[in-house]
Amino acid sequence: MLRVSIVGVTGYGGGELVRLLGKRADVKLIELVGRSAAGRPLGEVFPSLAPLGLTLSAGDQLERPEEADFVFLALPHHASAEKAAEILENAPQTKVIDLSADFRLRDLATYEAWYGSHPAPYLLKEAVYGLPELYRAKLNSGVRLVANPGCYPTCSSLALAPALKGEAIIEPDVIINALSGTSGAGRELKQNLHYSELNESASAYGLAPAGHRHLPEIRQVLEDQYGGPVEVLFTPHLLPLTRGMLATCYARLTPAFLAEHRDPKSVNAALRERYRDFYKNDPFVMVVDSPPTTKQVQTSNYCFIYPTADLRTGRLVTVAVLDNLVKGAAGEAVQNMNLLAGLPETTGLEMLSVYP
Amino acid sequence: MLRVSIVGVTGYGGGELVRLLGKRADVKLIELVGRSAAGRPLGEVFPSLAPLGLTLSAGDQLERPEEADFVFLALPHHASAEKAAEILENAPQTKVIDLSADFRLRDLATYEAWYGSHPAPYLLKEAVYGLPELYRAKLNSGVRLVANPGCYPTCSSLALAPALKGEAIIEPDVIINALSGTSGAGRELKQNLHYSELNESASAYGLAPAGHRHLPEIRQVLEDQYGGPVEVLFTPHLLPLTRGMLATCYARLTPAFLAEHRDPKSVNAALRERYRDFYKNDPFVMVVDSPPTTKQVQTSNYCFIYPTADLRTGRLVTVAVLDNLVKGAAGEAVQNMNLLAGLPETTGLEMLSVYP
Amino acid sequence: MLRVSIVGVTGYGGGELVRLLGKRADVKLIELVGRSAAGRPLGEVFPSLAPLGLTLSAGDQLERPEEADFVFLALPHHASAEKAAEILENAPQTKVIDLSADFRLRDLATYEAWYGSHPAPYLLKEAVYGLPELYRAKLNSGVRLVANPGCYPTCSSLALAPALKGEAIIEPDVIINALSGTSGAGRELKQNLHYSELNESASAYGLAPAGHRHLPEIRQVLEDQYGGPVEVLFTPHLLPLTRGMLATCYARLTPAFLAEHRDPKSVNAALRERYRDFYKNDPFVMVVDSPPTTKQVQTSNYCFIYPTADLRTGRLVTVAVLDNLVKGAAGEAVQNMNLLAGLPETTGLEMLSVYP
Amino acid sequence: MLRVSIVGVTGYGGGELVRLLGKRADVKLIELVGRSAAGRPLGEVFPSLAPLGLTLSAGDQLERPEEADFVFLALPHHASAEKAAEILENAPQTKVIDLSADFRLRDLATYEAWYGSHPAPYLLKEAVYGLPELYRAKLNSGVRLVANPGCYPTCSSLALAPALKGEAIIEPDVIINALSGTSGAGRELKQNLHYSELNESASAYGLAPAGHRHLPEIRQVLEDQYGGPVEVLFTPHLLPLTRGMLATCYARLTPAFLAEHRDPKSVNAALRERYRDFYKNDPFVMVVDSPPTTKQVQTSNYCFIYPTADLRTGRLVTVAVLDNLVKGAAGEAVQNMNLLAGLPETTGLEMLSVYP
Repeated sequence: MLRVSIVGVTGYGGGELVRLLGKRADVKLIELVGRSAAGRPLGEVFPSLAPLGLTLSAGDQLERPEEADFVFLALPHHASAEKAAEILENAPQTKVIDLSADFRLRDLATYEAWYGSHPAPYLLKEAVYGLPELYRAKLNSGVRLVANPGCYPTCSSLALAPALKGEAIIEPDVIINALSGTSGAGRELKQNLHYSELNESASAYGLAPAGHRHLPEIRQVLEDQYGGPVEVLFTPHLLPLTRGMLATCYARLTPAFLAEHRDPKSVNAALRERYRDFYKNDPFVMVVDSPPTTKQVQTSNYCFIYPTADLRTGRLVTVAVLDNLVKGAAGEAVQNMNLLAGLPETTGLEMLSVYP
Repeated sequence: MLRVSIVGVTGYGGGELVRLLGKRADVKLIELVGRSAAGRPLGEVFPSLAPLGLTLSAGDQLERPEEADFVFLALPHHASAEKAAEILENAPQTKVIDLSADFRLRDLATYEAWYGSHPAPYLLKEAVYGLPELYRAKLNSGVRLVANPGCYPTCSSLALAPALKGEAIIEPDVIINALSGTSGAGRELKQNLHYSELNESASAYGLAPAGHRHLPEIRQVLEDQYGGPVEVLFTPHLLPLTRGMLATCYARLTPAFLAEHRDPKSVNAALRERYRDFYKNDPFVMVVDSPPTTKQVQTSNYCFIYPTADLRTGRLVTVAVLDNLVKGAAGEAVQNMNLLAGLPETTGLEMLSVYP
Repeated sequence: MLRVSIVGVTGYGGGELVRLLGKRADVKLIELVGRSAAGRPLGEVFPSLAPLGLTLSAGDQLERPEEADFVFLALPHHASAEKAAEILENAPQTKVIDLSADFRLRDLATYEAWYGSHPAPYLLKEAVYGLPELYRAKLNSGVRLVANPGCYPTCSSLALAPALKGEAIIEPDVIINALSGTSGAGRELKQNLHYSELNESASAYGLAPAGHRHLPEIRQVLEDQYGGPVEVLFTPHLLPLTRGMLATCYARLTPAFLAEHRDPKSVNAALRERYRDFYKNDPFVMVVDSPPTTKQVQTSNYCFIYPTADLRTGRLVTVAVLDNLVKGAAGEAVQNMNLLAGLPETTGLEMLSVYP
Repeated sequence: MLRVSIVGVTGYGGGELVRLLGKRADVKLIELVGRSAAGRPLGEVFPSLAPLGLTLSAGDQLERPEEADFVFLALPHHASAEKAAEILENAPQTKVIDLSADFRLRDLATYEAWYGSHPAPYLLKEAVYGLPELYRAKLNSGVRLVANPGCYPTCSSLALAPALKGEAIIEPDVIINALSGTSGAGRELKQNLHYSELNESASAYGLAPAGHRHLPEIRQVLEDQYGGPVEVLFTPHLLPLTRGMLATCYARLTPAFLAEHRDPKSVNAALRERYRDFYKNDPFVMVVDSPPTTKQVQTSNYCFIYPTADLRTGRLVTVAVLDNLVKGAAGEAVQNMNLLAGLPETTGLEMLSVYP
């Protein structure tokens, strides 16, 4: 029986963790902390979770970190790092899975450029980046702190890793045009998330010069795969749908690849073979035979990927989809917990996508 | 291990059955029949189900009905009755759970008035109406044929049964104003279901003189509860959302009830108490403390109900919500299978609603 | 040339007024007041209106009421009454069209029961209720203050008036089950209007004991038509669509009507004839031959109405649809302005509905 | 008074033409042809257009082409070319505005590679490509045949033309990642346009090797602007919204441009200046100061464009939005008619966008 606490349970990430863990026979939720609803029944915060009959902690702090095997942090950045540091100091046996960005970037200067001063920089070395498909070897029972990836980095990295790793088939200069549903923007009230404003509307955001904070994270992962510098141009878009993420990724194919593959009809099959080989041990990644839709993976932990080659312009175009709250957040976090606990990676994540 | 076959697996009802049954350790899917996709991988019909690696039967007929403990029929009416009759004759040990309307109405004349000639009228007596909350006593291992209720009848009946049963608190003359998501209308292509037409649009349908086929079914259930004739005026509406059903039900409160309850503030609490008592043994019905939204139950087998009394006009106004494909169709069908198989009613249906 | 000012231009009602008036050759917008965006370009508040090149007033007050022929008030209740009183006192030649609820109810006690103390009760007598189809005779150049109706009252009243007026064909006890798009709830940020919460969700609100503030307004209009007391049970619902309102109205048909109409096939045609006769001089009301959808009237000033008789239960069931921001708010306000200005009622409102 | 006929009035393009022309005082609709609804009231095909009281031609052919000043063809390709040829031969005074792809590509071989054999290749030379902002000089009263552009080409070309024309600031190798609402896919019933399938779903389509037919058209326009070959990689996506198109366009900035602009903060302003200068005489193009949303232009003829420079990767990233049925189809067609008729380009197109 795994004893689990969740801090920040009133947001969508926190609620999704409860949805995924609340009915597991091998998990016991021992503390649910949510400042804005301290002491209230969870069913008031999320009526969908009312059947669990749980209540939030009376206070706004985690009271008994040491009783938990795992603490999930679904907090804003900075707050998350402070809480993680506190837990790891006071409860050395407890493992922390942090859904914020605080421990995702290994380079302190990069972190500070995008997020400001770091509350616990000494933990950056200890943290393991929790994208199991690409870092599984590091995700074991010795890990105390997992940096759970962002949704865009998960989707984009899975789309591009097989093309960069080993003998790369693309140049290390990629364009990622990504589309996200609204739940990725959280439960906070903002004008651009108001139904009347967002419904029937699509828009790009995070454009230069500001850029989007997931950019350095994506670059770090892709450079790990490539083993060298990778240029990344990343443009996120907000769509009128609640769950779902789609990344369309572009990069020049290498001359070697192009020399070998001149038939536009067969090249896609060859790409799929390469991708399938890359993910052959990954239960949640499926390389599919036709362009996937976000709906095909909604509510599940799957990522569907469709790589293609546009031989006319000599470019790889890969499309990947996932549910931003599951494989892009809480599902991946549970996957990480499973790995650290020595459980089968798929435990509690076997559910099929809801369709339609 | 329950051996299960599904006929009509290419529609939304059939697909939802696979979603709910496909990962159960105690269920083995042995035949999946879908005429329009015979012999094709299930993942081509529903990419969301691709991870199961299943393939549809090569032919368009159920080949081995006798090998199945349960056969689910997700076929159009008439076709369903024919298939049920055939199975029950050739495989007397096999139980049939029929999601069509063919065995829901006990009265043949009523059936024929709404659906035309019945292919197997002799089975009407044998069939048990599978609304477990109201007919559970009849749903046991001796049953061979279950008529799985329609989505509107399930939602409306659960909303009104506690007010009609025993000492009724309403007059037997009800108005049901119901709203449905589009998945209830099936996967067939129709102009009114075309995205560009339906998006951002709401409409009523099934108005007099034609009426909607669920009307006699609702009346039958309510009359069973009341023990006498009940007038029903039923107006369904089609909404721009995929899953979800909401019934707002109106009826005059009895003089006795009104005499006893004169305080508009406390009367709702009294109603909730009555309703909670009525459903105290029903794991999937929750009587809630504020008006529910369809989203709160999406993808789960729950029905949330909120009864109120409008003392100004002396009327009961009860709102009920459910997911039309789960509690309104496939989930209820699985609930029925569990009951017939002697399993806990909630087996495989414990999942929480997906939110948001 | 009509000189027009708008107070409260940053909300949806205000923005819609600018959309309808901004390109009229016979209208000049002279002051646009919006406290939250004082001094800013209108295009920052509503990029859709950027092509007009207008700027909001520097201050948060109407500076030159006397220069306007018409001032539209799109303010919260109370604030609206205060502003109207101020304008009418300081600029006696200026006419005020108030989109708030402040002058809709003729009875002060009723107003105070629903909205609290009234800032300018002495104006209640002077105000004319601006539902042109039902009160046109009173809407003339002598009027200084128009109370523009609510969206629900407009939709419901148009649906029921022809059945109540003259020799009524229904009993004076009606149930109105109404559905609204989200723009009717305004631009303010609220959790239930957050995209992720509202999308794919429908819900009822305004249930007893609280009720909805449009109830007394609806009753007042229906009683004006009927010439006596009318019981009203009104249940609004919030839908996942931006624009659109649909009211499904129920009432018992009179014995006289039922005696005369016994054929379920022809009775609807007779009802349509009665309704068409009632609205024969109303350019924006169309009595249609099949159930209308909200999309058929979106963005236009039309109201489509479909009356039916359910002879089985002896009830009238009438469905009406309109765009809550046009015929339900700003369009109707412009229609009122036209009438007061002696212009053809349809001036500037001739646009067809956008479809799809 | 312009006399206008429309062939193919039952589709969305045809219906939108009627919406834009039906209330114009200077236009008379003389023949409305729609094979699938010959002889029926237009209000049955599009209830939103019922107020016009028009009826479709009894036959399925244009009977009196010679009586029309303008005929709009909203037909499938091939059928359109045949009809255009017939009209131009029989009614030499009549001008044809063709909304299909048949006359958009000047090069016959390219046309045939994407669309098959051309029914009237001799007309390719005569046809003028009707993108007024880029080809206005050619759109005058001497033109008999206008090839109205596709929605993607209009949106993409407007986004990139100012960077390619004159002293180009980008390399002639662009990636266009475009998003479209569903109305662009027409009114025909297809499974991927079924509400339950498309709602809450996004997907890419037209990927290699097949590609999308708008690709050669985009390339032709961009090459006209650049004055030399331009490589184009174009990926369209289908979104769950009815109207709206957004193109995010990527290209390398030239060394000269990069040498001149090293400040990430000011470079965007410089780009906007260049773009504004380019479009200074174009009433329907607005270069905006923040990323536009598709909703900001819905139902209007505007195109909003936001160019940015990502100096980190040395690339231009331009976002453009328009309503695919207005500026992307029927609105542009009317704009072309205005130009050919010698009217102000904006006649009948002055309406503001509907928001929200």
